Amino acid sequence: ATVAAPVFAQDAPTLNWRLASSFPKVLDTLFGASEQFAKQISDMSGGKFNIRTFPAGEIVPPLAVLDAVQKNTIEMGHSPAYYYFGKDPILCFDTAVPFGLNARQMNGWMYDGDGMKLMRDVFKAYDVVNFPMGNTGCQMGGWFRNEIKTVADLKGLKFRTAGFAGEVLSRLGVVPQQLAAGDIYPALEKGTLDAVEFVGPYDDQKFGFAKVAKHYYYPGWWEGGAQVSLYVNAGEYQKLPESYKAMIDVASRSTNVTLLARYDNRNAAALKNLIGQGAVLHQFPRPVLEASWDAATLVYAEMSAKDPKFKAVHDNYMGYRDAQVPWFRVAEGSYDGFVSSMLQKKK
Amino acid sequence: ATVAAPVFAQDAPTLNWRLASSFPKVLDTLFGASEQFAKQISDMSGGKFNIRTFPAGEIVPPLAVLDAVQKNTIEMGHSPAYYYFGKDPILCFDTAVPFGLNARQMNGWMYDGDGMKLMRDVFKAYDVVNFPMGNTGCQMGGWFRNEIKTVADLKGLKFRTAGFAGEVLSRLGVVPQQLAAGDIYPALEKGTLDAVEFVGPYDDQKFGFAKVAKHYYYPGWWEGGAQVSLYVNAGEYQKLPESYKAMIDVASRSTNVTLLARYDNRNAAALKNLIGQGAVLHQFPRPVLEASWDAATLVYAEMSAKDPKFKAVHDNYMGYRDAQVPWFRVAEGSYDGFVSSMLQKKK
Repeated sequence: ATVAAPVFAQDAPTLNWRLASSFPKVLDTLFGASEQFAKQISDMSGGKFNIRTFPAGEIVPPLAVLDAVQKNTIEMGHSPAYYYFGKDPILCFDTAVPFGLNARQMNGWMYDGDGMKLMRDVFKAYDVVNFPMGNTGCQMGGWFRNEIKTVADLKGLKFRTAGFAGEVLSRLGVVPQQLAAGDIYPALEKGTLDAVEFVGPYDDQKFGFAKVAKHYYYPGWWEGGAQVSLYVNAGEYQKLPESYKAMIDVASRSTNVTLLARYDNRNAAALKNLIGQGAVLHQFPRPVLEASWDAATLVYAEMSAKDPKFKAVHDNYMGYRDAQVPWFRVAEGSYDGFVSSMLQKKK
Repeated sequence: ATVAAPVFAQDAPTLNWRLASSFPKVLDTLFGASEQFAKQISDMSGGKFNIRTFPAGEIVPPLAVLDAVQKNTIEMGHSPAYYYFGKDPILCFDTAVPFGLNARQMNGWMYDGDGMKLMRDVFKAYDVVNFPMGNTGCQMGGWFRNEIKTVADLKGLKFRTAGFAGEVLSRLGVVPQQLAAGDIYPALEKGTLDAVEFVGPYDDQKFGFAKVAKHYYYPGWWEGGAQVSLYVNAGEYQKLPESYKAMIDVASRSTNVTLLARYDNRNAAALKNLIGQGAVLHQFPRPVLEASWDAATLVYAEMSAKDPKFKAVHDNYMGYRDAQVPWFRVAEGSYDGFVSSMLQKKK
């Protein structure tokens, strides 16, 4: 006969953890996601598992969150892995890569495809257990002082971007610039910067870019659906009771869907406001998009040739995209397209 | 001075609840969602909050789940509210209505717009607290024995569908038929049924429709993103400790994103298999879609004129759609369209 294991007090220990976000308070969606996660964990554990959240720079610089979790300076972090492009480009597959998966496809790959297993393997080298915890949806291409009419217009363009996008765009003559959020506006005003990509309408409207660089381009082809992840120090994670491990998994998924819902809900109104403030919408010309696609293909080939681990994740991820996109075109694509066309007719 | 409240044993009582699903076991995605939810709650509560899940018909018939939760025969149910179109069409806004929101827009409306508040008000009349807990994404238009080339081809068509779609399609001459899943195939074979709409490739492939009605149409314009909800008996819910209430909210959101990820991941391969088995893909001709749009507009106007409550939810929901669609066309739409066109070129 078996007896149910007795429930000991230590099955629900009181814990006080810290979470460092890579995002400032002003980005209430992204920083707010970690706050929501911490509240859910506290509520579900009856106030026993407490996580204090810190915005970018308060206890850890925004680009040092992965390091801090690895060193166990903090138990948890919330960050987009493409911030660590310099460590290893393979990390970018946890966030977004040029012409990669959109938000729903990313969830499909992570939650029901090979994505979670592959990215867990990648993060193991950093002593981190990762959980998808938010997505911005497809971002905008950014704000430009002058129109981009041809591929040649990219030549010498001082563009605030970084990581994978910077690498690809540099092949087309762009000069990528890394600048903290607060420095962008003055640089655009002075002309030391020609263009900036940030996130999308809801976040962008907080910075007033429309006043100095009114040409607002889409799509942000380097971030078709940018995922942000929760990092947990692997050693600390292993010590947790199973119930707390489950709470982290469940709350991270909950926060994932809620953050995307917030962006989707708020971007629509923000875009309208921005247009009211003088923003002029443009789609990148097709030759510019095609040149970017070709440049990205080249960069992927170079990186794959250099690193078999990169190649393995790249091939799985892009194979997933190639299998998913034809299906998304059928029901979703035709539905969205038809509704959109009827609403334009109505006006 | 204040003292932290002591944690009493009853803060985490042992509970054994039952959840009736409207879905059979064979639909492993939809029924699996309630199983996943129950497992998450059990894991997070250290095995104290137990929810036993029952597939359609085992303890409650699929169309009686809402009633059973209302009467507290069972504490929980998992069901698409449009099954209860006969009680009140307003319930359909919790699932999907013709030419309504897609899956991401639905999450935006529910989680960050007015949707949750409005639908909670609707379900209050049934003594139910509702939580979004799954989405199928845009469904297919269904399987047809003969091609649909003009609006006239809908006249007299014996089509397995129900609820709102049936109401709209009947205005175009369709004769809606309500049939349980197991009866569809023989009816198609005998010719007592001309066409059937079910879900999408992953679920549809289990029934072999391609063999008797090979014309597979898209999009399912009556389900641009069908949401399934968790129902909790309101009286039982109020008795729960706050920690269990939080677990229900968080696990329902987690299950919501996970179910959609499963559908998205699995539909792509299933569609390929179906085409291999002889399915012939068609988009509904534009005049058919436009006639359906006009018929839906008429039905909405009639229902709104009859019932101010319906009108209030309808206007909020459709106003949300009208504000969201132009934004979704910009970044998401152009991104998806470009990637799709490049992959077609590659082939």
